[in-house]
Amino acid sequence: MNQDFFDFVSIQLQRDAKDALYVQLYSALQELIVSGQLTCGYLLPPVRKLAAFLQVNPGTVAGAYKLLEQNGYIFSRAGSGSYVAEITGSTGEECIAAVPEPEIETFTRLERVLPDNCIDFSTVMPPPDLLPIDDFKNIIIEVLDRDKGNAFSYQDSQGFKPLREAISSYLKEQGIKAQADNVQIISGAQQGIDIIAKALLNFGDYVFTENPTYPGAIAAFRSRGAKIVEINMESDGMDIQELESKIRSFRPKLIYVMANIQNPTGYSYSLAKRNRLIGLARRYHAMILEDDYISELDVSDMPLVPLKALDRDQRVIYLKSFSKIFMPGLRLAFLLMPPQLVSKVLTVKHHSDISTSGLTQRAFDLYLRKGIWQKHIAAVRRIYLERYQIILAAIGQFLPPAVICHRPMGGLTCWLMLPAGVSAAKVVQEAEKAGVLLTPGTAFFPRQAPDKYLRLSFAVTCSEEILQGVKVLGRVIEAELGEI
Amino acid sequence: MNQDFFDFVSIQLQRDAKDALYVQLYSALQELIVSGQLTCGYLLPPVRKLAAFLQVNPGTVAGAYKLLEQNGYIFSRAGSGSYVAEITGSTGEECIAAVPEPEIETFTRLERVLPDNCIDFSTVMPPPDLLPIDDFKNIIIEVLDRDKGNAFSYQDSQGFKPLREAISSYLKEQGIKAQADNVQIISGAQQGIDIIAKALLNFGDYVFTENPTYPGAIAAFRSRGAKIVEINMESDGMDIQELESKIRSFRPKLIYVMANIQNPTGYSYSLAKRNRLIGLARRYHAMILEDDYISELDVSDMPLVPLKALDRDQRVIYLKSFSKIFMPGLRLAFLLMPPQLVSKVLTVKHHSDISTSGLTQRAFDLYLRKGIWQKHIAAVRRIYLERYQIILAAIGQFLPPAVICHRPMGGLTCWLMLPAGVSAAKVVQEAEKAGVLLTPGTAFFPRQAPDKYLRLSFAVTCSEEILQGVKVLGRVIEAELGEI
Repeated sequence: MNQDFFDFVSIQLQRDAKDALYVQLYSALQELIVSGQLTCGYLLPPVRKLAAFLQVNPGTVAGAYKLLEQNGYIFSRAGSGSYVAEITGSTGEECIAAVPEPEIETFTRLERVLPDNCIDFSTVMPPPDLLPIDDFKNIIIEVLDRDKGNAFSYQDSQGFKPLREAISSYLKEQGIKAQADNVQIISGAQQGIDIIAKALLNFGDYVFTENPTYPGAIAAFRSRGAKIVEINMESDGMDIQELESKIRSFRPKLIYVMANIQNPTGYSYSLAKRNRLIGLARRYHAMILEDDYISELDVSDMPLVPLKALDRDQRVIYLKSFSKIFMPGLRLAFLLMPPQLVSKVLTVKHHSDISTSGLTQRAFDLYLRKGIWQKHIAAVRRIYLERYQIILAAIGQFLPPAVICHRPMGGLTCWLMLPAGVSAAKVVQEAEKAGVLLTPGTAFFPRQAPDKYLRLSFAVTCSEEILQGVKVLGRVIEAELGEI
Repeated sequence: MNQDFFDFVSIQLQRDAKDALYVQLYSALQELIVSGQLTCGYLLPPVRKLAAFLQVNPGTVAGAYKLLEQNGYIFSRAGSGSYVAEITGSTGEECIAAVPEPEIETFTRLERVLPDNCIDFSTVMPPPDLLPIDDFKNIIIEVLDRDKGNAFSYQDSQGFKPLREAISSYLKEQGIKAQADNVQIISGAQQGIDIIAKALLNFGDYVFTENPTYPGAIAAFRSRGAKIVEINMESDGMDIQELESKIRSFRPKLIYVMANIQNPTGYSYSLAKRNRLIGLARRYHAMILEDDYISELDVSDMPLVPLKALDRDQRVIYLKSFSKIFMPGLRLAFLLMPPQLVSKVLTVKHHSDISTSGLTQRAFDLYLRKGIWQKHIAAVRRIYLERYQIILAAIGQFLPPAVICHRPMGGLTCWLMLPAGVSAAKVVQEAEKAGVLLTPGTAFFPRQAPDKYLRLSFAVTCSEEILQGVKVLGRVIEAELGEI
C-alpha cells in the first residue's frame, strides 16, 4: 500500500447506506481529525488520489472536503492543497484540541435533575441504600486504629501488598492462577483501561474492540491516538471470522473484550470462541485486555470463568473493579498482568497518579479478608436475581414480539433491538415524556451507530417500577410501530 | 527547514563537551527512540544527510548509528537504510514500547529496606506521626453518619460541589479569584499534570519546563509524545532571555513552572520574572501550568503569591495538592482552570478514572470547612520552620565553603551545588556508606544532567539527625575534595 494513504485505511464507505458517500467520507475524516489522528497542519491527499484509493468518484472527495472546510476542520491554500485546521474559538482555545469529547455516560452526571417519580432504566449505579455503609465504616475505623499515620502515607505504587495477596487468593478461588507480584492496584476500571492504553499503545496503533462496547474504553484508546477497529458482537461472542480477517490486515496491538456478560449487550462468549480468540491473539502477537465488568452477577448454573483462566500464553491482561457496582465512589480495581508487563504498568501507574488511596486499599483489604465482601455480594445477587427475572418476564409480557431481547447470563441490564423502522432515539424521547428513562444504544458504538438499540438497566428500579416502566415502554414502541 | 529533519531539531551537540560527538548523538537519538518520538519502523535519514543537517562529520553519524545498532535500538537493511527497532525480549514484549521508564522517585518505593539508624535526607514524605490521624478519623465518621451510601456512590466527575466551593473560598483568601465552576478535583498533583498533558498536548507538541524540574512531570509530558525543551532556572526564576529566544523558535503549547519554592531548587520567581513569563505566554499563545508544590511552607515575611493571582488573561492553570505533604496517601488535589478548559479537562478526567474517591472528597471538604486543615498546616509549619533554620545553619557550619546553597524561601529541601571536580554520584554513594541518604540532582534534569547537585530533604529528620547528617556530608565532601 502506498504510504501516503496509510492514515485512511480505516475508512469504510457503504454504497447502500442511508447517508450519501460524501457525507460518510466527511464523517470519517472529521473523526480522524477530532480524534487527533490527523493533526493540525496535516496535508490531505489531492482529491483525485484519495478518490482513486477509496475507489469513489472524485466528486465524492471534493464534496467531503468542502463540507469539512465549511465546518472549520480543514482549510485550503491555493495551489498547495487542503490542510487540517486548528480548533478555533475564544482566545486560548487554540491549544485545546488533543482529545475527542464523546458524551460522558449519564450515570456520572449526578447533578442532572431527574423528573419527579420517573422510572430510571438508564443508570447502572446501585442505590445508596444497597451500599454496605456500616460494615465499611467499622472497617475504616479498625484500619485507622491499627495503622495510624501509615494509612495516610504514600503507598507503594503497585499497591498495598497485603491487598495484592488477598486478591491473588481470591482469584485462585475463581480458577485463575495469580501471584501478588503480578497484581497492580488501580483507581477503578477506567483507570485500568487508560493505563493499559498508555503502556501498550503508540500513536497510530490499532486496537480492536467489540461492537458495541463500553464508550469509556474507546475514549481512552483514542486519547492515545490509537485507531479503533470494531468487531461485531454475536450472542456467543465476537464474530470470529471478522476478527480473523481483520487481525490479519491490521495487526492490532490490543484486543479489548468483555468475555462475560458484555457491556452493553449482556452476551457471554462460548468456550469455542474464547479459545479461538486467544489462539488468534497468540498467532498475531496481540495482547487481550479482558474487562471483567460484572461477572459476580451471573445467573447461570455454571459459574462464568474468566478468559484469563484459559490464558496459557500470558496474552491476557485481566481487569476487575471491586468498586464499580458495589461501592462505585471508592475507585478501586486491579489488573492481573502477564509478568513481562508488570514493571511497565507500574511505571505508567506512577506517572498517572502515583498510587491509589492507601486508606481505601487498607480498608478493602480487611473487608476482603474478613469475608464481608463475599457476604455483601451474595446479598446483592439475591436482590438483583429477582429483578432480573421480573424484567425478563415483563419484557416478554409487555413489549411487542418484534422487539428482540437476548437473555443475558446475568448483570444489571438488558439489550433490546427494536423492530425495523422504529427509531431508538425517538423511543427514548417519548418514553422520557412518559417518565421512563432509557439509554439509547448509539452511545456504545465507536462509529456508524445504528438507531435501533436500547439498554435497560434495573440497578435502581424496584419490582413495581420495572413492571410499570416496561409497560410504558411497550406502549411507546407500539405507538411508534403504528406510525410506520 | 526540510521536513525530513523536523524530528531532529531538538538535538544539540557540544564540541567542547566531555563526551565525543558521536556519543552525544547516540544519546540524543536513543532518547528520541526510548521516549517514543521515533517509533518502531521509523526510517532514519541517510548518514550524509543527517551529518549535513547537524553540521558534523559523516563519521560522527555513522558511529552513532553503529552504537545504536549494537545496543538494539535500530537495525539496518542492506540498500534500504536504518530503521528504529522494536523492543525485543521475552514473548509478548514486542508490544511494550510506548512510554519511557525513568527512575521512579525514591520516596514511593516504600518497600526498599533502609539501613538501620540511617539519616534519611532523601524522602520528602512526612513521617506518619506528623499526620493528623485522630482528627481525620473523626471527620470520616462524621461524613459516613451524615452522607451514608452517598459517600460511596459515584461522584460528579468534576468533583464534590461543596468541596469545590470550599476550595474557591480558600483560594480567594490567597488572592486568587476562583469560582467553584472552574475547579476540577483530581487524585493528586501527578494526575493533574497527566490530565493537562492529555487535554492540551498532541504527539510532537513542544512543552517547556524549568531545568531542573520534577521528573514526574517530564514523564507525563513524554507519555503524550511531547517534546521537552528545558529552560535553565536561576535563583529568581527561569532564564527569561533563554525563554524568549526558545519560545519564538518552538512555539510551545505549554510551560510547566513552579513559581514558588521550586522543586528541586527551592528558588522562587521575582515579580518581574512572573510578569515577563505571563507576558511571553500571552504573546506566543502558550498556556502555563503552575504547580504550587509547597507554598504553605514559606518562611518569608511576605506571603508567596501564586502566579495565578497575576493571570489577567486566563493563561495560567493552577495545580495544588492538598495531600502531597500532609496526607500523601489520600491522593487529593485540584486544578483551577481558565473557563475555556473546564469541559475539556472534565472529559479527560472522566476518561482517566471517572472521578476521585467520593469519601476522600467529602471528608476533606469537612476538614477544610471546620478549619482543621488550616490549624494542621500552622502546626506543621512551626515544626518545619525550626528544621529549616537548623539545616541552613548546619550547612553553613559543616559544609566546605565551596559548596553553594541558595537560601530557599521555605519548603522541605535544600539544593546544593558541589565544588568543581566533585561528583554528586560519588558523594551520594560515600554518604550512604556512612549512613546518610541523599538524592542526587541528576534525577531532576530532563537530559544532560550535570553530576554536581544534591537535594537534601528534612521531611523526616529531627534536629539531631540534621546536625549529625550534615556533619557526615561535610566530611564526605571534604574527602572528595582532597582527592581532586
